[in-house]
Amino acid sequence: MDVVIRNGTIISASDTYSADLAIRDGKLIMIGQKLNIEAARVFDATGRFVLPGAIDAHVHLQMPVGKLVSADDCESGTKAAACGGVTTILDFATPDPGQPLDSAITERIALFEPAAQIDYGLHAVIRDTGDGLAGQMKKSMELGVTSFKVYMVYAGLMVDDSGLARILALARDLGALTCVHAEDPALLENRTRALLAAGQTSPWHHYDSRPELVEAEAINRIIGLAKATKSSLYIVHLACREGLAAVAGARAEGYPVYAETCPQYLHFTHEVYKHSDGQRYVCSPAFKGQDSQDALWQGIARGEIDTVATDHCPFQSAEKDAGRDDFTRIPNGCMGVETLYPFMLSAANCGRISYNKAVEVCSTNVARLFGCAPQKGTIAIGSDADLVIYDPRGESVVSRARMHSKVDYTIWEGLRLAGRLDQVFSRGRLVYSDGIFTGEPGWGSFVRCR
Amino acid sequence: MDVVIRNGTIISASDTYSADLAIRDGKLIMIGQKLNIEAARVFDATGRFVLPGAIDAHVHLQMPVGKLVSADDCESGTKAAACGGVTTILDFATPDPGQPLDSAITERIALFEPAAQIDYGLHAVIRDTGDGLAGQMKKSMELGVTSFKVYMVYAGLMVDDSGLARILALARDLGALTCVHAEDPALLENRTRALLAAGQTSPWHHYDSRPELVEAEAINRIIGLAKATKSSLYIVHLACREGLAAVAGARAEGYPVYAETCPQYLHFTHEVYKHSDGQRYVCSPAFKGQDSQDALWQGIARGEIDTVATDHCPFQSAEKDAGRDDFTRIPNGCMGVETLYPFMLSAANCGRISYNKAVEVCSTNVARLFGCAPQKGTIAIGSDADLVIYDPRGESVVSRARMHSKVDYTIWEGLRLAGRLDQVFSRGRLVYSDGIFTGEPGWGSFVRCR
Amino acid sequence: MDVVIRNGTIISASDTYSADLAIRDGKLIMIGQKLNIEAARVFDATGRFVLPGAIDAHVHLQMPVGKLVSADDCESGTKAAACGGVTTILDFATPDPGQPLDSAITERIALFEPAAQIDYGLHAVIRDTGDGLAGQMKKSMELGVTSFKVYMVYAGLMVDDSGLARILALARDLGALTCVHAEDPALLENRTRALLAAGQTSPWHHYDSRPELVEAEAINRIIGLAKATKSSLYIVHLACREGLAAVAGARAEGYPVYAETCPQYLHFTHEVYKHSDGQRYVCSPAFKGQDSQDALWQGIARGEIDTVATDHCPFQSAEKDAGRDDFTRIPNGCMGVETLYPFMLSAANCGRISYNKAVEVCSTNVARLFGCAPQKGTIAIGSDADLVIYDPRGESVVSRARMHSKVDYTIWEGLRLAGRLDQVFSRGRLVYSDGIFTGEPGWGSFVRCR
Amino acid sequence: MDVVIRNGTIISASDTYSADLAIRDGKLIMIGQKLNIEAARVFDATGRFVLPGAIDAHVHLQMPVGKLVSADDCESGTKAAACGGVTTILDFATPDPGQPLDSAITERIALFEPAAQIDYGLHAVIRDTGDGLAGQMKKSMELGVTSFKVYMVYAGLMVDDSGLARILALARDLGALTCVHAEDPALLENRTRALLAAGQTSPWHHYDSRPELVEAEAINRIIGLAKATKSSLYIVHLACREGLAAVAGARAEGYPVYAETCPQYLHFTHEVYKHSDGQRYVCSPAFKGQDSQDALWQGIARGEIDTVATDHCPFQSAEKDAGRDDFTRIPNGCMGVETLYPFMLSAANCGRISYNKAVEVCSTNVARLFGCAPQKGTIAIGSDADLVIYDPRGESVVSRARMHSKVDYTIWEGLRLAGRLDQVFSRGRLVYSDGIFTGEPGWGSFVRCR
Repeated sequence: MDVVIRNGTIISASDTYSADLAIRDGKLIMIGQKLNIEAARVFDATGRFVLPGAIDAHVHLQMPVGKLVSADDCESGTKAAACGGVTTILDFATPDPGQPLDSAITERIALFEPAAQIDYGLHAVIRDTGDGLAGQMKKSMELGVTSFKVYMVYAGLMVDDSGLARILALARDLGALTCVHAEDPALLENRTRALLAAGQTSPWHHYDSRPELVEAEAINRIIGLAKATKSSLYIVHLACREGLAAVAGARAEGYPVYAETCPQYLHFTHEVYKHSDGQRYVCSPAFKGQDSQDALWQGIARGEIDTVATDHCPFQSAEKDAGRDDFTRIPNGCMGVETLYPFMLSAANCGRISYNKAVEVCSTNVARLFGCAPQKGTIAIGSDADLVIYDPRGESVVSRARMHSKVDYTIWEGLRLAGRLDQVFSRGRLVYSDGIFTGEPGWGSFVRCR
Repeated sequence: MDVVIRNGTIISASDTYSADLAIRDGKLIMIGQKLNIEAARVFDATGRFVLPGAIDAHVHLQMPVGKLVSADDCESGTKAAACGGVTTILDFATPDPGQPLDSAITERIALFEPAAQIDYGLHAVIRDTGDGLAGQMKKSMELGVTSFKVYMVYAGLMVDDSGLARILALARDLGALTCVHAEDPALLENRTRALLAAGQTSPWHHYDSRPELVEAEAINRIIGLAKATKSSLYIVHLACREGLAAVAGARAEGYPVYAETCPQYLHFTHEVYKHSDGQRYVCSPAFKGQDSQDALWQGIARGEIDTVATDHCPFQSAEKDAGRDDFTRIPNGCMGVETLYPFMLSAANCGRISYNKAVEVCSTNVARLFGCAPQKGTIAIGSDADLVIYDPRGESVVSRARMHSKVDYTIWEGLRLAGRLDQVFSRGRLVYSDGIFTGEPGWGSFVRCR
Repeated sequence: MDVVIRNGTIISASDTYSADLAIRDGKLIMIGQKLNIEAARVFDATGRFVLPGAIDAHVHLQMPVGKLVSADDCESGTKAAACGGVTTILDFATPDPGQPLDSAITERIALFEPAAQIDYGLHAVIRDTGDGLAGQMKKSMELGVTSFKVYMVYAGLMVDDSGLARILALARDLGALTCVHAEDPALLENRTRALLAAGQTSPWHHYDSRPELVEAEAINRIIGLAKATKSSLYIVHLACREGLAAVAGARAEGYPVYAETCPQYLHFTHEVYKHSDGQRYVCSPAFKGQDSQDALWQGIARGEIDTVATDHCPFQSAEKDAGRDDFTRIPNGCMGVETLYPFMLSAANCGRISYNKAVEVCSTNVARLFGCAPQKGTIAIGSDADLVIYDPRGESVVSRARMHSKVDYTIWEGLRLAGRLDQVFSRGRLVYSDGIFTGEPGWGSFVRCR
Repeated sequence: MDVVIRNGTIISASDTYSADLAIRDGKLIMIGQKLNIEAARVFDATGRFVLPGAIDAHVHLQMPVGKLVSADDCESGTKAAACGGVTTILDFATPDPGQPLDSAITERIALFEPAAQIDYGLHAVIRDTGDGLAGQMKKSMELGVTSFKVYMVYAGLMVDDSGLARILALARDLGALTCVHAEDPALLENRTRALLAAGQTSPWHHYDSRPELVEAEAINRIIGLAKATKSSLYIVHLACREGLAAVAGARAEGYPVYAETCPQYLHFTHEVYKHSDGQRYVCSPAFKGQDSQDALWQGIARGEIDTVATDHCPFQSAEKDAGRDDFTRIPNGCMGVETLYPFMLSAANCGRISYNKAVEVCSTNVARLFGCAPQKGTIAIGSDADLVIYDPRGESVVSRARMHSKVDYTIWEGLRLAGRLDQVFSRGRLVYSDGIFTGEPGWGSFVRCR
């Protein structure tokens, strides 16, 4: 046997029990009481929890945005992930204008292959809904990319209603999942124009240009299109109470509408945009009010929110600060891949949610929705041994100094978290232990989704 | 005194009582018991009801649609209205591409002036949301046109989301009301294309191209835009349960969202499109299922629907029949201005709603929403003497032969109605009596709304 | 003619217009422009409003409660009403144990007859649901008492679920309306016992013994019984958000469920119970939190609350203060009949509701629901000339010193109100003018409801 | 090792994977791929599923009802359970009037001890809410009985609102769960009386005496009491759409309200009561309409219904038939413990729900809610080896002839089910195999809940 983890408390999305785990060839092959087995490496998890590694469904590494590129490349980003207990990320293959999806996917995999420290999968971004779309989506799925991301905003990327409806219908026919960034471009543009005209350009006005109802309108609209086309739908980074209500309503009517939120929406409110470093918190959707934050936690508890992912897309502080006086020039994006799981497990540790729920939203549901279960997302025989050993009695304080991302600040600086990640395994290989990254670039492999 | 109506039962939106009415110079100037007054003309309404004339908020006379023109011109349409107890219509000033609104309004008034048999007001259609819009809307309002109509569908006419948001915001600032034809163009276009490709072209597929969720999505969207811009909103010809639910939801949250439905949606269902003359019932939104019809009646009873108007826009049977084999070529529109009030009063007569409610939705609410109360829409001192004498013990059967519209058929043919309109007065002038039209072109004058 | 009121702005539940009014034999017999009529008394209402007098649907005069009797007798209470623009009250005929309803009604009328300064009607309280009930209810209705009040709480008065269901079913068969004081006796008793055991006896604990959910549970229950028996239902003095939601939900399903609230719930919150004179505000249901107050105003605006009445049942300050140290010994009841209409019209004056809505909830809806329309509740030919002349530019400050009730304090002391009642007419007789009561005992007569 | 099950597909509430299982001393001690272990007994589950045994949370064995006793005694009932894949039942300790709970529990355990073929736990029925209640509930919990059942109907057993509120509050303080049979006694009694008076006594009138709104009112009421006392609540045998809506509403507000339904409500409707053998389907709550059945399935899918149990309480056909002409004399109760799991797994097999969901509602959730997880309700190391081997390609037809209950008929006769239970294990002991019961009385032991 390659690895045995003894005496841990195993926590899956539905179970909690004590057992030893045995791993061979990267797979979990035995779970039992006091396993009498020899192994190359043995870890003692007495008094600690063994959890499935998190799957961050929403990561943008090395992503070009105008003249900038998001701060983490495929290597540093996956290292940061590993050190945060994230054992799989889902990034995006975004085609250049005119580029076919399969070409974009192949290129993206080529970029990750030598760099990835943990496993990775891809969503394919659709920006062009012209004639070859059906064929391209089919090819993507043959390549193991079964989820398609569309933007309702952002010039150049955004897809209009007609295109959205086409994509939804095609995804329905192909059994794929459509992931949508939902904000209303018309409202956003009109508000932004008015704010700029009035000289209201501070980071606060980033929020002001895209408040709750701008996000909610778009969520209502895309849900309407999904209902009308009888398609499934996954709302990425849901951030407002009103949008959640729309999701919950559609689900109650029986429609397959899923929602993801992010730790930043669960912890901050738009108040941060009033601070002198407000620009550093700028991402889209913008943070909303306290009532939205409360509603999102309730949505997790009620099962109306399926996943928590990060939208990890950091920019350097200087790049953010350059937009201080004009919110439209602040590059959008926050960091989070390294703090996602510690944050959510801390919430469990403090009793806000159960540990099983934390595992469910950070790992199990992600694997199910994106077609990589049971290879990923659970602790079960035959699954990849992507595991985290967590000490519930530990504690940690978030500090840029101890993190592994390339970005030079973190919005989470100073946050005190209950519990502590001690070890992280990627397919049975120890990639993080007691503060030290122990993986290597190229270890990570592409996860084909079904 | 010019006219006295004796011994009638007066029915307003809130009251029911017996009284005599006295009219001078077109105004109601006295209401009383056994008025001891001499008058040029005296009508005895013993055993009968005296009601405010209806105000049809949605009429398209002499309206060019492609190569066709709607069948009723300003003269015949207002004659038909008068004979149906409608004493005011609201038609539309639709600018040619590039034409300013005030010019379109002036032209439209010029068309009506010599022809109108009853009073008329106008909505202004906005198709161009470019720079001069604010100024044009302001000028319209100075001309007495305070409601603006926008189409979410129809190439050439339709306004995109950004334009919709602009109009809503400007109307809010001006205190005007935005009226919206809500159907989703993207879904409609995608579905239509798919149906045509599949050779599914019968009148039934008119419905199939724009079913409940196509209307509902648009209603949800425009409500979202109205909420985000804090604007009031009037949904014209609401035809589906799901859309009503969206309206009711927004009202329950306190938003000023109003809704109009039409008799055709209260009486027919999409089943008629399966008949051999299905094309003759084609209008947009399409008729929906029985559950929608039931919901609309409930919406009236609960006050969630404010007005009942007709969308009167008839085409000759040959024009309709020409599209029998291709639903996209059937001119859209049904007739109704002459049957609106008889239909709704018959519903009251049968106990489905109260007479007060019939008056409220056909007259009083219309006047209030469109800024012509209390001149119009009620029986009160100083109001225009636009009155109907109605015999609740009578009955009538709808027959094209006895109607006054120029269109050569009616979807209402053969409908048996409880009660009968006996006389209709426009500003004190008898314009209809016992089956005979007694008005004259040019009598009607333009109603300036505020 | 007896009385003419010139140049006023007439405000009914649905109309607003300028006219003169003429009154003869207590009835409104003419409304017109510049009426050229001679009259014994002429009032000039130039610049002022003429409104229907209010109908207070919930008044307890001279009501025995244990050893006490409510502070206003039939004479002082109706005088106070008149001076507040209330031209009709609905009081209660509460039988002694074993006493038949008709006997209680007859006795109650005998008490009012020589004393009443304005018109009065009655609800009959049902405390005994034994065999003769159907007959007794029938007799009540023959006597002109068509609404039946039941208490879900108060030992001796309260009716159990089985009795409630019987009453609802009988009322349904008879076409009567069942009025219910809805609070849950089991929760109330359990909580009270626990509070007393814990020595928590201050006025605040009056609220604490019957918080939102105690009222809401009972409202949900009685609505459930009404739905199951297909009966209509009128919730008296609704005071909490949760209960309103239940009412709104039932109405949305189409059930004939009506609700009344009171000015005290629209103005105060439970915070007053923390004050040193908290006992003086004690009534049941208790005042609730700000969210309930907000919801009640919204309920009025949306038409979910039909009427505003007072539950006028004052006790002298010494009687209230005696229970300062034990909330279970504070006599329940507040004053309000003299401030109801000024308070609601002030809300209209300040733009919170329309004047038409104030008239609707304080007068028109009451008359309709309790079967005395159109004799009462409107300004229409043939109706009783129960009128109020109101100066919207005036203002007034509530002061016990200027009031006409016998109670020695008022919870409304010092409240500044926009607008001022100038004159009040009861069937054409001036009963109040510029601060002076001008009526006489015995003028008021019994209103037979249908 | 005692038992090894090889090559099965393991299905838990959240996972599906292939593995071997090893059992020793009645516990699951190893799960792995191709376990290289010797065992006394080896089962090959190739091509088949291995599931946790079901836990039937609602069984009445040997229960006295008037002069009758339910048809299955502790021995036959647990045999039937075992043969249906139910490896734990929860029965009821119902005290005689005046008997303390602990005495009733001890007696009940004594009855089960020599007879039980599988494990059993108990709910304690509370009928007396007098002074000693708190102490009695505490003692029950010390004995391992942590859930308390209350009846809102049934003379002698039923508890009034005050008692209900007391129990809820005490259970809250003790961390216990209150289980409620919710039907409204007042409505039931009034309706029954009216039906009997009208001579309407057929089995259909059993339904007619307790239709949807009679159950819904009680559910709303008990939820109201639970909310007011901040207690958790478990509605047993929920059978109607309206009641489910109330449960869903309370959950959406965040209240810990749980619901159980039964297979009979998921399969039959009230139509069966119109049949000549309608009496044989009589149980309470009565079966409801198709809309309720549909809603219950949706409730399961949405997670609004937590558990499916049987309310197994059969009576012999002659006992049922004796009430044919008077529905009030039909003993209430249906059979189901032997068909529960086959029925629900068949639903999974047909795609109506997932297998994981079937496991969740029939086993995992029951164990969690009633405090016997992870000993029961899952497949995890250390858990009791209560297992079922299920062949998804098999099929079976329900037939009394092949069943093990003592009752002489089944309402499920002839039902064709997809899939087939092949083996059942109770703590590692084979108790059922290929149609043959292989257990023994006394094997089952009492499950102490926490």
